[in-house]
Amino acid sequence: MMLDSLDTPAALVDIARLKRNIDAMQRRMNALGVRFRPHVKTSKCLDVVQAQCRAGAQGITVSTLKEAEAFFAAGITDILYAVSVVPSKLPRAMALIEKGCRLKLVVDNVNAAAGIVAFRQTAAEPLEVWIEVDTDGHRSGITPEAATLLEVGRTLAAGGVTVGGVLTHAGSSYDLNTPEALTALAEQERAGCVRAAQRLREAGVPCENVSVGSTPTALMATHLAGVTEVRAGVYAFFDLVMHNVGVCAIDDIALSVLTTVIGHQPEKGWVIVDAGWMAMSRDRGTAKQARDFGYGLPVSSDGTVMDGYALIAANQEHGIVARTGGVGAEAGAGSSEDLERRFPIGSKLRILPNHACATGAQFPAYHAVDANGEVATWGRFHGW
Amino acid sequence: MMLDSLDTPAALVDIARLKRNIDAMQRRMNALGVRFRPHVKTSKCLDVVQAQCRAGAQGITVSTLKEAEAFFAAGITDILYAVSVVPSKLPRAMALIEKGCRLKLVVDNVNAAAGIVAFRQTAAEPLEVWIEVDTDGHRSGITPEAATLLEVGRTLAAGGVTVGGVLTHAGSSYDLNTPEALTALAEQERAGCVRAAQRLREAGVPCENVSVGSTPTALMATHLAGVTEVRAGVYAFFDLVMHNVGVCAIDDIALSVLTTVIGHQPEKGWVIVDAGWMAMSRDRGTAKQARDFGYGLPVSSDGTVMDGYALIAANQEHGIVARTGGVGAEAGAGSSEDLERRFPIGSKLRILPNHACATGAQFPAYHAVDANGEVATWGRFHGW
Repeated sequence: MMLDSLDTPAALVDIARLKRNIDAMQRRMNALGVRFRPHVKTSKCLDVVQAQCRAGAQGITVSTLKEAEAFFAAGITDILYAVSVVPSKLPRAMALIEKGCRLKLVVDNVNAAAGIVAFRQTAAEPLEVWIEVDTDGHRSGITPEAATLLEVGRTLAAGGVTVGGVLTHAGSSYDLNTPEALTALAEQERAGCVRAAQRLREAGVPCENVSVGSTPTALMATHLAGVTEVRAGVYAFFDLVMHNVGVCAIDDIALSVLTTVIGHQPEKGWVIVDAGWMAMSRDRGTAKQARDFGYGLPVSSDGTVMDGYALIAANQEHGIVARTGGVGAEAGAGSSEDLERRFPIGSKLRILPNHACATGAQFPAYHAVDANGEVATWGRFHGW
Repeated sequence: MMLDSLDTPAALVDIARLKRNIDAMQRRMNALGVRFRPHVKTSKCLDVVQAQCRAGAQGITVSTLKEAEAFFAAGITDILYAVSVVPSKLPRAMALIEKGCRLKLVVDNVNAAAGIVAFRQTAAEPLEVWIEVDTDGHRSGITPEAATLLEVGRTLAAGGVTVGGVLTHAGSSYDLNTPEALTALAEQERAGCVRAAQRLREAGVPCENVSVGSTPTALMATHLAGVTEVRAGVYAFFDLVMHNVGVCAIDDIALSVLTTVIGHQPEKGWVIVDAGWMAMSRDRGTAKQARDFGYGLPVSSDGTVMDGYALIAANQEHGIVARTGGVGAEAGAGSSEDLERRFPIGSKLRILPNHACATGAQFPAYHAVDANGEVATWGRFHGW
C-alpha cells in the first residue's frame, strides 16, 4: 500500500523518525548506566514496543491492565503497572501473574497497601509492589521524607508482599521550557526518589529498584546516581508540546494525521480539512506554552512545515487550517485566490499533533510509512 | 451484570434518561411538524440509534463513511453523510449505494461538485447530493445569497446528479446561553436554509429537502416553516456544555464515567481517581462558558451531584477531584480527615462529561444501566 491510497483522516508514523527517537533515548540511557523501561501508553502498539525492545529496553511500563494483558500476550513478561492499584483490580492483576507475568504493582497509600496484604493471604502467587514517590507535587505519590513512606513499606513487607522498589514521575517537566529548569527538575526527581529508597532500606524494607522518568527529564538529566531504571513514553513519537518544552525539533515528530482539504471559506482565510478533534483529539496542550499551535501544525504534501499556519479550530470531523501570522507566513498567501490554489479541494496535508498520546488514541491503527512511501498497518488498541 | 461489578473507568448510560431525552426531542419535532434525523456521531452505538428510530426518527445523519457502513449493515438505509465530500471518497460511498443504501452526500463548493459530476459519468448508480448552507459563519457551507449556491446547484443538476436538498448546522449555538439568543439563532438557521432552497428552486434546481439543526436550536426553535427535517445528536446524552448553554438540567445527562478513588493528596485537598483524560477526553468545552466544570462534575455513588467539586485536572489515567468553591461546597469538607472519609480508597464516583461526543469516543463500549442497576454492554465503534 502506498501513502497516496490512504483514506483520510489517518494516523501516520514516520518509521525513520520513530527509530531515530528510540535509538537516541536508548543510547542516552546506556551512557547514563541505567536500564530503560519505555512507557507503552503512548503508542499501545506492538510494532512500536518491539522496536523499543530491540533497541535495548528492559521491560515496559503500562498505564492500564489492558495494556499489561495485551503486551504479555505478545511475549513481554517484565511489566510495571504504574498507576496506584486498588484491591478491586487485584484479581485481574493476579490472573496475569499466575500465567507467568512478572507484573509489578504500585501504591502510594496505607489503605491500598493493607488491601494488597489482605488479598495476598489467599493469593496463589506472590505479589511485587513498588511505592510511588512524589518528587514534584504534580499528582500522586508520597513525598520522600513523609512518615507514610515507611508505613506503606512496612505494611507491605510485614504482610508478605515484596517491596520491589520506588518509582516517581516528574510530570511537571511538561510545564518547563529551559534546559536549566529541566536539568534541575531531573536532579530533583533523581534525588527525591533515591532518598526515598534510602529511607526504606534504612528502615529495613528492601528496595532494589529506583525508577524515575518523564520524557523531558530523561533527556535532560546529567547523571542518575542511585537510579536503576528510567521510564519515558512520548519520546518515541514526540509532539508539539515536547517541541515547546525544548526536547525535540519539529523534524523529530514521528506521528502526524493525514487529512484532505474538503472546502474553503475564502473571505475568512479558512481551509476546511477532514481532520477535526475526533482525529487530532481535543488536546490543547500548547495553549499555555510559548507557541500555541491550535490543534496542530500543518505540513504540506512535499514535507514542508507550513510555518505560520495552524489547525486553528476543530469540530468533530472538520478542522480549520488558517494563518496565525507566525514565523514564515509569506505576504499575500492568505488571499482568496491563493488559498484555493495553495490548498486545492482534494489535496492532502499532514497535521503534527500537540500530544502524541492523545492523538494516537483516536485511531484503531497507525499507518507506518517507510522511506519509499510504502505503508504498513500497525494495529493499536484502546479501552480498558 | 450489576453496576458494582464493573471495572473502572467505564462509560455508563442511564437508560431511563436516554429514553426521556430521545422521546422529548421526538415529541417536539412531531409538534413542529418536521421529520427528525438524529446525528449518530454522538453515540456510534446501534442500541442508541435503534431507540431513536423506535421513537420515530426518519433516517440518520452520519459524520463518517464508517458510521454509514456500520448502520447500513444494521438495516438503516436512509443516511445523510453530513460532511462535504471529496472525489477520493466517492468509490467508498458508491459501494454502499450499490448495496441499496439511500446515501445522501453533501458539498459546499464547485470543485467538489464538478468532481462528483465526473464520477457520476461512470458510476453504476445515481447519486444524490445535498448542498451545505452557512447560516451562522461558524464553519462550512455557502451563504444563502451567494452566487456559488446556484453555481453548485446547476453544476450538479446539469451533470445528472440529483440535488436532494439543502442542509445547515448552526453550530455557533454552542456559544450562546440565553433562550432569547438561541431562539433568534434557530430562526436565523431556519430562515437562511429556507432562503437557500427558495433560490435554488427559483433557478430551476430541484430542492426537496430543507434540513436544519443543532441540539440547542432544535430545542429552542419556535416554528420551522419551510423546513422538512431537523438533525441533532448530543441531545440523546446531553452533557455539561449543553447544561451551560441552557438546554438541559444536570439530571438529564445520561452519560457518565464510573471511576474509582485510588489515592489522596490530603494537604492539597485532592482525591486521585482512575478517570483521567483517556476516559473523559481532553474536551474542555466548559472552560469558556459561565461555569467551568474542569474535566467533569462528580456524582457520588448514591446519585448526589457533588456541587462544589470538579475533576480539576487530568493526566492520561489519573484524574484529580477537588473542591472548586462552587455552589453547595460545605464548610470543612476539604479537611484532610474528611477527604479520606468522604472519598475512601476503592470507593466509586461517576463523572458527568463536558462533551458526550468526545467522552463516548474514548470507550469501546457503553455500559447501559437500567432502573434496577443491571448493566448491559452496548458496543460502539471508532475510527474511520
